[in-house]
Amino acid sequence: MHTIKVELRGEERSYSLYIEAGGLEKLEGLYHRHDLGEWAALISDERVAELYAQRVKEALEENNICTGLFVLPPGEEQKGLASAARLYDALIEGRFDRRTTVISLGGGVVGDIAGFVAATYLRGVAWIQVPTTLLAQVDSSVGGKTGVNHSLGKNLIGAFYQPKFVLIDPETLETLPRREFHAGLGELVKYALIEDEGLFGTLERELERLMTGDRRLLEEVIATCCRIKARIVAQDEREAGPRRVLNFGHTIGHALEAATGYNELRHGEAVIWGMLAAVWLSHRKGLLPRSDYKRIGGLLLRLPRAPLPQLEPQGVLEQVHHDKKVLDGRVNFVFLERLGQPLISDKLSGGEILAAISHILGES
Amino acid sequence: MHTIKVELRGEERSYSLYIEAGGLEKLEGLYHRHDLGEWAALISDERVAELYAQRVKEALEENNICTGLFVLPPGEEQKGLASAARLYDALIEGRFDRRTTVISLGGGVVGDIAGFVAATYLRGVAWIQVPTTLLAQVDSSVGGKTGVNHSLGKNLIGAFYQPKFVLIDPETLETLPRREFHAGLGELVKYALIEDEGLFGTLERELERLMTGDRRLLEEVIATCCRIKARIVAQDEREAGPRRVLNFGHTIGHALEAATGYNELRHGEAVIWGMLAAVWLSHRKGLLPRSDYKRIGGLLLRLPRAPLPQLEPQGVLEQVHHDKKVLDGRVNFVFLERLGQPLISDKLSGGEILAAISHILGES
Repeated sequence: MHTIKVELRGEERSYSLYIEAGGLEKLEGLYHRHDLGEWAALISDERVAELYAQRVKEALEENNICTGLFVLPPGEEQKGLASAARLYDALIEGRFDRRTTVISLGGGVVGDIAGFVAATYLRGVAWIQVPTTLLAQVDSSVGGKTGVNHSLGKNLIGAFYQPKFVLIDPETLETLPRREFHAGLGELVKYALIEDEGLFGTLERELERLMTGDRRLLEEVIATCCRIKARIVAQDEREAGPRRVLNFGHTIGHALEAATGYNELRHGEAVIWGMLAAVWLSHRKGLLPRSDYKRIGGLLLRLPRAPLPQLEPQGVLEQVHHDKKVLDGRVNFVFLERLGQPLISDKLSGGEILAAISHILGES
Repeated sequence: MHTIKVELRGEERSYSLYIEAGGLEKLEGLYHRHDLGEWAALISDERVAELYAQRVKEALEENNICTGLFVLPPGEEQKGLASAARLYDALIEGRFDRRTTVISLGGGVVGDIAGFVAATYLRGVAWIQVPTTLLAQVDSSVGGKTGVNHSLGKNLIGAFYQPKFVLIDPETLETLPRREFHAGLGELVKYALIEDEGLFGTLERELERLMTGDRRLLEEVIATCCRIKARIVAQDEREAGPRRVLNFGHTIGHALEAATGYNELRHGEAVIWGMLAAVWLSHRKGLLPRSDYKRIGGLLLRLPRAPLPQLEPQGVLEQVHHDKKVLDGRVNFVFLERLGQPLISDKLSGGEILAAISHILGES
């Protein structure tokens, strides 16, 4: 079992990620080892609950942990304050008290809502995160970002809140719809691009083996990505500085999601397109050498992904300016100087962003 | 100006309380000294906004702080998730970004909602608290408790979140409705009972002068109470242990509020009745000597307060058991062993609580 410590200010806020194929069966053991209470609120979505929730609930109850199961309808459109409110209702009606541990079992949507509810129910109860999608395993499981969407933007309501531990079982990816799995590959490549040339080489060589679901390889690659993210988050928990490199590919990626109403592209797919735009811009502005540009573009284009729908570049640009990370009207953009070397800069005109958007719309 | 530091783990989370009659005029100076951003969201309620908001807004804007004013309808019944949601809407529509500082100007309801919104808007923005009721000045302004009510109970949704600073101006009490002011006196007595015999003596001697609104005396007494609370909160930020003494009088007080549907008694009035019940129980169980019991009861009965309505003691007892602080069906009750010396114990039967409730219903 890989164990990665996320070191945060205040020892009691630091926590561990446990990564192991088949690790889901160790949940109740870890639960006891972390000295959590006798009440658990297991939150999942319909798809994941059907596959795993009953098994998890029974294992917990055999260990004398009284477990309530709360199932959300699937999909990003469920990720609003209304879903959080329904969970509060259910927890209160079930008389779950301050010693409750919320367990989120599912992808990013489930983790974000359940984490927000854990952060705000009775001013905060314990939380365990069990991410079951590739994207959630390498991204939202590290860093304590929780939240819900607002009709005017994603994740506008939320909190930074740390789980007691995160359990990642790559075997759960075997039941993940292929499109979800492919979308998650984009985040793996992101870590390689911003931090780890060695990982990039592995992905270049082993992409096909990874896509067949090789457990050992998945375990290794997921652990590498989590280690990178844990290191970055430890430096900058509240995203004031260094952590912004994690937004590589996300500025235009988010705008593409918004411009398509959040229902045509998976987040990971949008990030793949966003990274294509970012490396193109980095090269065009004379930052990223041609050889790196070609090599990176080569790998990104090997990732299976939905084509971009017909979009007006201007409409996508407007969404870029709407993003919550835009300060003072300036876009803080993450460029690449070379493989593994990001550069954050706001020296970027609207026209340049527009050109990058047109470029990827042409590639699609 | 009295300056009291609330020392919390993590220097950047510690903050100061500034207490001064007329201090409201120093808000913009303190704002700049704390190096806060150029955008402020001033949140108030109708009554307080009419008295002070325009003046505060103008002073901020003269200092180049772009200030939006958001006014809540008054009353505890506004303190729900729906009010928070309307504030999110307004902030997003006004394009308030991460550099925004939320300023709460008002009583406990305004502070709790605005603090919760500050804690959860864009995963947390800066917050300044300007409490304008006696209760809020000595109680909710220290400790970082924020939250909203649920139809099934008070403060069930919330977060621990610390302000950048708190500015307390006792002059704002001059416009406070008398009943609100009187209700707040109960919390002053609470601090004396759990911690400070000297303060108790002052209150015994000077209660009438305090009720006439003597500014210098108010400043001193409020500062003393805040110092006590700051010390207790520093020991136990998340209310795992020592902080529970602050619940003195609150177990039965909360139950009285709930049993009367939160619309007949002010919180402070309910706490006065709850303290009367708690000292009676403490004496009856042989903990509190007769002389202290008589002396404390004497002061509590001098506090102006609404009489209790006709209530079934059994119904009040049920509300005690419904309280979110009840663990495992046991009530963690705060007794007094003597003046200034609380004792937390769960050795208390339902019958004893019932007797105490009947006792205060008889006194009323």
